[in-house]
Amino acid sequence: MKVTILAIGDELLSGRTLDTNSHFLSGKLAETGGEVLETRVLRDEAEQIEKALRDALSSSDMVITTGGLGPTTDDLTRFSVAKVAGRELKEDSASIQRLEERARAKGRELYENGRLQALFPEGSKIIENPTGTANSFITEIEQVSVFSLPGVPRELKYLTEHELLPFIAGRFPGTKIRQSCYLHCFGYSESWVGSVVEGLEIGDSFNVAYRPDFPEIMLTITGREGVSPGDLEKVRDSIEGALAGVAYSSNKKDSLEEHVSCLLRDTGQIVAIAESCTGGLLSSRLVAIAGASEIFSQGLVTYSNSSKVSLLGVSEESLNTYGAVSSEVAREMAKGLLEHSKADFSLVTTGIAGPGGGSEDKPVGTVYIGIGHRDGVTVIRREFPYSRSQFRQITASSALDLLRRKLSGLELEFEIR
Amino acid sequence: MKVTILAIGDELLSGRTLDTNSHFLSGKLAETGGEVLETRVLRDEAEQIEKALRDALSSSDMVITTGGLGPTTDDLTRFSVAKVAGRELKEDSASIQRLEERARAKGRELYENGRLQALFPEGSKIIENPTGTANSFITEIEQVSVFSLPGVPRELKYLTEHELLPFIAGRFPGTKIRQSCYLHCFGYSESWVGSVVEGLEIGDSFNVAYRPDFPEIMLTITGREGVSPGDLEKVRDSIEGALAGVAYSSNKKDSLEEHVSCLLRDTGQIVAIAESCTGGLLSSRLVAIAGASEIFSQGLVTYSNSSKVSLLGVSEESLNTYGAVSSEVAREMAKGLLEHSKADFSLVTTGIAGPGGGSEDKPVGTVYIGIGHRDGVTVIRREFPYSRSQFRQITASSALDLLRRKLSGLELEFEIR
Repeated sequence: MKVTILAIGDELLSGRTLDTNSHFLSGKLAETGGEVLETRVLRDEAEQIEKALRDALSSSDMVITTGGLGPTTDDLTRFSVAKVAGRELKEDSASIQRLEERARAKGRELYENGRLQALFPEGSKIIENPTGTANSFITEIEQVSVFSLPGVPRELKYLTEHELLPFIAGRFPGTKIRQSCYLHCFGYSESWVGSVVEGLEIGDSFNVAYRPDFPEIMLTITGREGVSPGDLEKVRDSIEGALAGVAYSSNKKDSLEEHVSCLLRDTGQIVAIAESCTGGLLSSRLVAIAGASEIFSQGLVTYSNSSKVSLLGVSEESLNTYGAVSSEVAREMAKGLLEHSKADFSLVTTGIAGPGGGSEDKPVGTVYIGIGHRDGVTVIRREFPYSRSQFRQITASSALDLLRRKLSGLELEFEIR
Repeated sequence: MKVTILAIGDELLSGRTLDTNSHFLSGKLAETGGEVLETRVLRDEAEQIEKALRDALSSSDMVITTGGLGPTTDDLTRFSVAKVAGRELKEDSASIQRLEERARAKGRELYENGRLQALFPEGSKIIENPTGTANSFITEIEQVSVFSLPGVPRELKYLTEHELLPFIAGRFPGTKIRQSCYLHCFGYSESWVGSVVEGLEIGDSFNVAYRPDFPEIMLTITGREGVSPGDLEKVRDSIEGALAGVAYSSNKKDSLEEHVSCLLRDTGQIVAIAESCTGGLLSSRLVAIAGASEIFSQGLVTYSNSSKVSLLGVSEESLNTYGAVSSEVAREMAKGLLEHSKADFSLVTTGIAGPGGGSEDKPVGTVYIGIGHRDGVTVIRREFPYSRSQFRQITASSALDLLRRKLSGLELEFEIR
């Protein structure tokens, strides 16, 4: 199955928006054994889109378009597909009804240009998009399937998993689906993880791909044709064993916060959080998981010194003697929070996100992360010399990981490699 | 100056490597006033590369290729450029000497295939690459400049800044700068914004593109050739006027939180935050902006009822009578926080993120957002029937927008369209 991908949108050519959809689709198609001949990024210009479509029809078994399905005048995909197919556009009544319902649910009416999103080339298969406004559609032209997806990455991902891949399996039955399994890792570098995996000599029947998803790393272990799911799991287990404490989950969709939430829920325990440099990000990652009220009682964003004193009972003396970013203050934050909140665990961060505020002893990127429990308080120090935004992310992940280690009975102090 | 970018390499089509070079180049070219017609990602296949080159020559003033300049058999760019140009490949003695020196420095000898990197289409301008092995080159074909860059992002970036951009400035002195300006909007649907803009009849010399960046929308207004910056600004101003209160900034890089931070900083005022359903996201968006300590004192994530009572002084009675998600509780949260924190503004959220917890009166997606100030408390109610994650994002944005409206003297209660 040969595929051409056409990504449509001026914003993708102005340096404003990076087209990640084509990359995502290429990876998914590679997994099904498809061959991506080419990806093209095109302007919102009818003539150019039509020419690219005609080119693609002459070389491909399938064409995937992304973007250009919105309700405004620069959204041209449906018009260009119809023109190249030599078909009229026809209003789909089910789509109109859906658009009206969506508008009504938001207390709006459906405007005239909103109705454009219910137009499809005659004879197309219309695919409902539960994640957004624009329905997707498939138009068969000269025995080539043209599959038009919306450009919003979240919608595109959903429709790829739920509609595009099943469609391909049915339309191109020769397509091979290879077996894959996954491991999520946190706390060590990609090259260290790579060297551990290479030391295992798992053989030529397996391929391990490393996908850094800052600050975590996801390993995808793929068995070549003929490898049984059981053999694949054995290899995954041996890698997981070698990465003990570092690989935290083999469930593809498990994030660090989901994993920690499960561990808390399973043991009926509750955490409270006080953040300085992470500014709410740590709490917000836990609250993002449904059912958070069972495992999370309260969070404090004690960004100013005075709020550390008034909300957590940190002593003015410690703040003056050691500074807000210090092991001592992190310890008092964790202790004070545990007492005030009556939670089972307290988790706190205080660090220097930058760009200013660093010193020789404590450069920008220095952070203290503390965990409190009835058996005592542990504080670890880390240096994360990253951008402000990355610093906050990796600090939040490190705090979640500290709680994970505590809940899993692992060492809390360890050397990073 | 019209440009086509051709990115060459199988790894860019397998989902393994994301092509970031084209995005980087597009941004740089947009800054110089160039118009990127198209970017294409191609396989390491001579025929395909040559066809794409010929296509590009017919529509562009300049073609930029990236990748395919290495020493292995799948590196075909120099061969394809020579073939399309109808020229022979010729060994460049300076390049050979450089390759030999580099090999010697690493204690290696120059292998036969290494010598391929010294071959260039006859008549090309050879450009030394101090950051890597592969020299770059420019070949003029039918009055189109074909500029071939290496695919390694670090090398490509260096050569773009030091060679490509200076070359463009010399080669296309008449380059017309297409003017663009921007408007950030929040609170209304893309189709509503589109219908307002269309109603203005701004004429054919201007193009308006809509980029939804949930939950916001960015408009890019571009003037066609010959439009003066003044005319463009007039059009932008008329659109901004028609979208009064909805368009919050015309600064390209301004986010809602940056805009609000500026408004606070300019007036020397401070906000404190108490969040329930947004769980820290609202605080974290403000803290993400450098210098947050000047405008933000503290945040409370009062996820449980008991924390609303202990930290904010919400009455048990109100919680029992009206429920945690109610106008009354939002009002008490905003009032309590303003008193406890001594900030100039308090900003609070309480809502039902789902998936559970909804009722007929207050379905999943219902949220109350409150703002407190010495002149009183205002609470607005919204319904956001989105996913849990989108609900939290749009709620945080709505709270920031409420603060923006307050700071800008706009109506706080308005109907959403």
